Amino acid sequence: VPNLEGREKILEVHAKGKPIENMEDLKLVAQRTTGMSGADMANVMNEAALMAVRNGHEKITLEDLSEAIDRVAMGPQVKSRILTGKEKRITAYHEGGHALVSHILPSNGQVNKISILPRGQANGLCWTSPTEQRSMYEEGELRDQICMLLAGRAAEELTQSDITTGASNDIERATEIAKGIVMDYGMTDVGIAKMVEPMSREKGHVPGQATQEKIDAEVNKILAEEYNRAKGFINKNMDAFKNMSETLITKEEIDRPELLELLKTVQVEKPVEAPPAPPTPPPAG
Amino acid sequence: VPNLEGREKILEVHAKGKPIENMEDLKLVAQRTTGMSGADMANVMNEAALMAVRNGHEKITLEDLSEAIDRVAMGPQVKSRILTGKEKRITAYHEGGHALVSHILPSNGQVNKISILPRGQANGLCWTSPTEQRSMYEEGELRDQICMLLAGRAAEELTQSDITTGASNDIERATEIAKGIVMDYGMTDVGIAKMVEPMSREKGHVPGQATQEKIDAEVNKILAEEYNRAKGFINKNMDAFKNMSETLITKEEIDRPELLELLKTVQVEKPVEAPPAPPTPPPAG
Amino acid sequence: VPNLEGREKILEVHAKGKPIENMEDLKLVAQRTTGMSGADMANVMNEAALMAVRNGHEKITLEDLSEAIDRVAMGPQVKSRILTGKEKRITAYHEGGHALVSHILPSNGQVNKISILPRGQANGLCWTSPTEQRSMYEEGELRDQICMLLAGRAAEELTQSDITTGASNDIERATEIAKGIVMDYGMTDVGIAKMVEPMSREKGHVPGQATQEKIDAEVNKILAEEYNRAKGFINKNMDAFKNMSETLITKEEIDRPELLELLKTVQVEKPVEAPPAPPTPPPAG
Amino acid sequence: VPNLEGREKILEVHAKGKPIENMEDLKLVAQRTTGMSGADMANVMNEAALMAVRNGHEKITLEDLSEAIDRVAMGPQVKSRILTGKEKRITAYHEGGHALVSHILPSNGQVNKISILPRGQANGLCWTSPTEQRSMYEEGELRDQICMLLAGRAAEELTQSDITTGASNDIERATEIAKGIVMDYGMTDVGIAKMVEPMSREKGHVPGQATQEKIDAEVNKILAEEYNRAKGFINKNMDAFKNMSETLITKEEIDRPELLELLKTVQVEKPVEAPPAPPTPPPAG
Amino acid sequence: VPNLEGREKILEVHAKGKPIENMEDLKLVAQRTTGMSGADMANVMNEAALMAVRNGHEKITLEDLSEAIDRVAMGPQVKSRILTGKEKRITAYHEGGHALVSHILPSNGQVNKISILPRGQANGLCWTSPTEQRSMYEEGELRDQICMLLAGRAAEELTQSDITTGASNDIERATEIAKGIVMDYGMTDVGIAKMVEPMSREKGHVPGQATQEKIDAEVNKILAEEYNRAKGFINKNMDAFKNMSETLITKEEIDRPELLELLKTVQVEKPVEAPPAPPTPPPAG
Amino acid sequence: VPNLEGREKILEVHAKGKPIENMEDLKLVAQRTTGMSGADMANVMNEAALMAVRNGHEKITLEDLSEAIDRVAMGPQVKSRILTGKEKRITAYHEGGHALVSHILPSNGQVNKISILPRGQANGLCWTSPTEQRSMYEEGELRDQICMLLAGRAAEELTQSDITTGASNDIERATEIAKGIVMDYGMTDVGIAKMVEPMSREKGHVPGQATQEKIDAEVNKILAEEYNRAKGFINKNMDAFKNMSETLITKEEIDRPELLELLKTVQVEKPVEAPPAPPTPPPAG
Repeated sequence: VPNLEGREKILEVHAKGKPIENMEDLKLVAQRTTGMSGADMANVMNEAALMAVRNGHEKITLEDLSEAIDRVAMGPQVKSRILTGKEKRITAYHEGGHALVSHILPSNGQVNKISILPRGQANGLCWTSPTEQRSMYEEGELRDQICMLLAGRAAEELTQSDITTGASNDIERATEIAKGIVMDYGMTDVGIAKMVEPMSREKGHVPGQATQEKIDAEVNKILAEEYNRAKGFINKNMDAFKNMSETLITKEEIDRPELLELLKTVQVEKPVEAPPAPPTPPPAG
Repeated sequence: VPNLEGREKILEVHAKGKPIENMEDLKLVAQRTTGMSGADMANVMNEAALMAVRNGHEKITLEDLSEAIDRVAMGPQVKSRILTGKEKRITAYHEGGHALVSHILPSNGQVNKISILPRGQANGLCWTSPTEQRSMYEEGELRDQICMLLAGRAAEELTQSDITTGASNDIERATEIAKGIVMDYGMTDVGIAKMVEPMSREKGHVPGQATQEKIDAEVNKILAEEYNRAKGFINKNMDAFKNMSETLITKEEIDRPELLELLKTVQVEKPVEAPPAPPTPPPAG
Repeated sequence: VPNLEGREKILEVHAKGKPIENMEDLKLVAQRTTGMSGADMANVMNEAALMAVRNGHEKITLEDLSEAIDRVAMGPQVKSRILTGKEKRITAYHEGGHALVSHILPSNGQVNKISILPRGQANGLCWTSPTEQRSMYEEGELRDQICMLLAGRAAEELTQSDITTGASNDIERATEIAKGIVMDYGMTDVGIAKMVEPMSREKGHVPGQATQEKIDAEVNKILAEEYNRAKGFINKNMDAFKNMSETLITKEEIDRPELLELLKTVQVEKPVEAPPAPPTPPPAG
Repeated sequence: VPNLEGREKILEVHAKGKPIENMEDLKLVAQRTTGMSGADMANVMNEAALMAVRNGHEKITLEDLSEAIDRVAMGPQVKSRILTGKEKRITAYHEGGHALVSHILPSNGQVNKISILPRGQANGLCWTSPTEQRSMYEEGELRDQICMLLAGRAAEELTQSDITTGASNDIERATEIAKGIVMDYGMTDVGIAKMVEPMSREKGHVPGQATQEKIDAEVNKILAEEYNRAKGFINKNMDAFKNMSETLITKEEIDRPELLELLKTVQVEKPVEAPPAPPTPPPAG
Repeated sequence: VPNLEGREKILEVHAKGKPIENMEDLKLVAQRTTGMSGADMANVMNEAALMAVRNGHEKITLEDLSEAIDRVAMGPQVKSRILTGKEKRITAYHEGGHALVSHILPSNGQVNKISILPRGQANGLCWTSPTEQRSMYEEGELRDQICMLLAGRAAEELTQSDITTGASNDIERATEIAKGIVMDYGMTDVGIAKMVEPMSREKGHVPGQATQEKIDAEVNKILAEEYNRAKGFINKNMDAFKNMSETLITKEEIDRPELLELLKTVQVEKPVEAPPAPPTPPPAG
Repeated sequence: VPNLEGREKILEVHAKGKPIENMEDLKLVAQRTTGMSGADMANVMNEAALMAVRNGHEKITLEDLSEAIDRVAMGPQVKSRILTGKEKRITAYHEGGHALVSHILPSNGQVNKISILPRGQANGLCWTSPTEQRSMYEEGELRDQICMLLAGRAAEELTQSDITTGASNDIERATEIAKGIVMDYGMTDVGIAKMVEPMSREKGHVPGQATQEKIDAEVNKILAEEYNRAKGFINKNMDAFKNMSETLITKEEIDRPELLELLKTVQVEKPVEAPPAPPTPPPAG
């Protein structure tokens, strides 16, 4: 995955021959595409050209570029799918839950946008982009990820009449991380050994029933703790959370600047270290 | 799956060159084909043309269109299979059970027709069409589905001399939903983790024996609760239920209008939100 | 599978060009071939022609037709295999057990013939033909089937010096039905959930050890109850049973009329509903 | 498998063109080849012709025919393999154990010959030929088979300094039969259900741990009981048994007539029913 | 794998036609490439030639050779990946932990270099080269390996705010060794038998649950003991350890000579036996 | 596998056209190649010819033949692999352990040579050749094999500072034999049934957990008993054992005659029966 500098260069290459209104805008694009591959960025530039035509612009504007980034990052909007008012409300609060906890626990990336316009299989999206290249995660960061993933369900439980199946993908991902904490990284009292399930082809120890039950208990405990932590964050910031979610119902998409404004009363935990300066470019050739 | 507007357009396309008595009828067809694919609707129009010929109509009437919808939605009637009087009675009460509970719990769709004319492998059918596009289900709606699926068996138990094997497909589907509640959506006290069975290729946690036994208990509890809820609904509305079922024995098929008449004394729980207005058509081109 | 009317038509088709002594006999053949496919019936007519030649008849007689039905329904007799006197006795009482219980519990079909002339792998046969088309079974009927299947072994235990391996196929089939009652149709206290074994590719719930042990207990209980019921039926009708079995040793085959005579003192439980009148034939063309 | 009459005919066919000293000998051959296939019998006649050449006979004598039967029934002798005196002694007593119990429990066939001349993988052989066609076994006969199979090991334990690995094939076969009694034929208190092991592809019920442990106990109990019964038979007839085994060490092979002489003091249990007369031959053509 | 003498010869072969400044340097290269294959050494010589060009040297210097050895032993540096200050710190202390324990427990090889320049997937590396050819390991040496592998995680726990996922590969390898101690080498109270996991294709005994739980306990005990031993070593030498780690943050790579200087106050346990003199070369031809 | 006489003949065939100094030496070669195949013996004669050339002999001497037998029996020496002094010591005592117990328990073959010159994967070898053709083993002989296999590890424990991984192959083979005693040959209190592991494709009974745990206990008990027996033999003969092992360190290989001299004070248990005289050769042709 290219870094900031790399992304700027790639964008310049793909901008060649395209009528960009303001070449300085590419720097903003580079900043908003952390985690994208070279192919993703080529897509962004092509989509931006199409957007300009569709929007009747003679040159590719920052607006076209922004729409293009959204399209590539989150997939095209599915216009034929229309949520009922109830579904809109559930989705808005669900995504709002992810956004609130992502904002409070910034270790795993920053929230760029939330949306209740259906894209792909999803009714809504909370788009977070990772901070620069990560090659290791602290246990606390893994737990923050679980907390953020379960925050959508937590929001449903606290504010809606019923919980839904909408959290199933979040639950699957949170379970994988919790299993990693217990079975791969040896971070719990179950022990430090790498453990694998009976049919797994990975290296590691296949535990007996007693240990397997300890693993079950530990995995469930981690998920329950983070689920409760997510509920705590929502309860503590209920006014801002409701305001954000209701705004989302009305506007259907909220960008980062407005999100920050809506959440300005929310206390962020563990602010993240600023990324390092980009490396000195290697000598040409 | 196309929405209402989409279905109207598709029907118009397939109506071209066919002698439709009244083009306005296609709107009714569109309303009665929720959940059908484009190919299904092409089938409806072709079947309607054949029906018109078979019925000696010069133009395709609403009657022909209705027969065609039934044929496509429920399969052709198997005329060579003849139920004994006893089988007719069991089937009528079984389908009546599905219909009554579908009517009481409308969250998962509306009942269009019930029938004891054998089609495909089935002796009878309770045809419900889904409300418009769903992308998430509340826990309560999942439980309503289970309740509706088990209502056929519940009706057998309450009104017939013996229960039968006729519920096996209902039981399989209800079990899948109950497993989802426990293992995929983390909606019970077993915990929020995504759990999978030992030989499964899905991602998730393979639990130890103790957790597996909790899962067994929870799945059985959900099914037992919904089975009892279905029996409660039938007992509470026994007169209307028996009347509907006996009418079905006589008439062999009952359409939605008559069903609503027969069940007018039955109290509906949780009325469903009206579907949203169809989307503004996109600009041409 | 064709119904009575269908079978008559099929037999007429295959009778064309064959010298049938009395075309009215085909109606009797149709009545005695319930459950046979069109191909089976073509076989019956061809075998009958061969039988007429072998028996030196100029035309195909009812006798030839009867032999042909036996051959197709039960397979050709294996003349080179000769039972010892002891094997004959065991086989006669074993088949007698099936026949007695089939007669008492007619829900699953009527006994047409019993035989101790070896056919295929079997030393003897109890040929029951199903009542008309079945698409569902009551729990009581499943239990009747188990009772009938285990009646051969029950007869061995009550009347012979030792039980034999001859019941292994009966046991396998009875076990499958008992598993269905517990695991597929949710008819016991184990619960209503569809349950499957660990390596199964069917949909359903793989239970933990505690539930698996409940299933074991329930399956064994059903088999034990039906085995005891079979023994009860034999003990209650011991004189008729012995008389029938000894007659079978002597005659080697007994047809339905003589069976009914031999069992006339036996009280039938749950007489079966008469099959419905055949459907009105559809208009020609 | 052909019966006695069938075997005589087959032998006559294969005798054509071969110089048989006395055609009446073929009847004796037919009596001594129960259980052999047509191909086996063709082999016998060809081997007999080779034997006659090797023995310098102008015509095929009864001696040549006998040698040929042994060769086909038991395989050619492995002359390069030479047993130590100790191995001879162990083998003689082991085969003697099989022979003694086969003689006492004749239900599964009669002993034709015992040998300590190595053939194939085996150091020695106890050749029993089955009584005529069997299609079912009584529980007692299955237990007799287990008793006979374990008698070799029993003889080692009672008369030699140590038990050996020589019984492994006997143990495997005895285990299969014991499993059948418990799991296939429902002959024990474990219950009548057909049970299969977890990875089996056979139909049947996969039991839970509690039932599996009952199965273990039952299988082991059957094997232990039959092992003890075998030891009881040997102890009761120790003089004749030792005399037979010592004779075998000296003579290396003992035929049925001499075996009967050596075991004339031994009381046979459950004499077997004489086989039925052969069937009337079918009309020619 | 070639020995010292073998490596010298191989290097001479690959040096042919290359402008080596000082042929005596090849002896040093041979000493620093223990454990490398012939192909690895060919790589070293080719990389050294490229390095000389890149460094503007007319002949290949010892500096070029050293850089080439690092490149082959540890992979090329990934310049585009830049660690945050926090990641650098964690990585430096993690690698420092490996280095300290490798130094204290030299039985498994000597530390050549530590680095926090990312190479391949790794953020940092602790490069140890094995002592000459090993064909057996003492239990103590296996435990030393585990201790060294877990020392990175131990350093994180003792000196950083949180443990990370960076130890997952160390944990996997340590678990494999611990399983070997218990299951392959029979070195614990679980018993001497070779044990394998249920799905393994290796020969050995598949244990029951009780033994499997003993194995779990033993594997976890070994890992916990060695993890604690690693923590003890770090605590005992905390000043030198911190000094080394902080130096690594600054310098990014530390060679063996400087490492020895930094760790001169650290007491080495169990000094290793000197390797034997190289064998007399075999006669030419 | 050919016997003594067979081996002499084979050697004579392969000696044709080779300059053997003394044809009588082939008899000695035949005596020292028990258990070798015809192909092995062809190899011996070819290697001997090469040895004669390498040793500068005009004819193939007994010395050349001896070296050739070693090469074929134990593989060529790996000259590039050099043991440290410590590894030599461990290996010498390990092989000494095997040799001592092989000498004391001669039932499984006689010791021909021990060596600490690495061959193949092994650091050292204890070469025992089997007594003539075996087709069965007494339980005591199986236990003697286990005792001999574990004697290397026992020697390490009693005389070295630590046990090593060098015994892993011995442990695997000993475990297989112990499993055979329990699961294949029914020689323990677990019962006589042939038992197999859950995933095995062999015939036999898959036991439940309770039996599986009995098997674990029995396998471990056998291995522990034989391990202790091996330690007992070493302790009882410690002086001779140390003397032999130290001699091996010095001489690197010890032949049978010198071994017998070194172990002359050691009391042999259960002397083996002399092999039988070779069979009379079959008539020519």
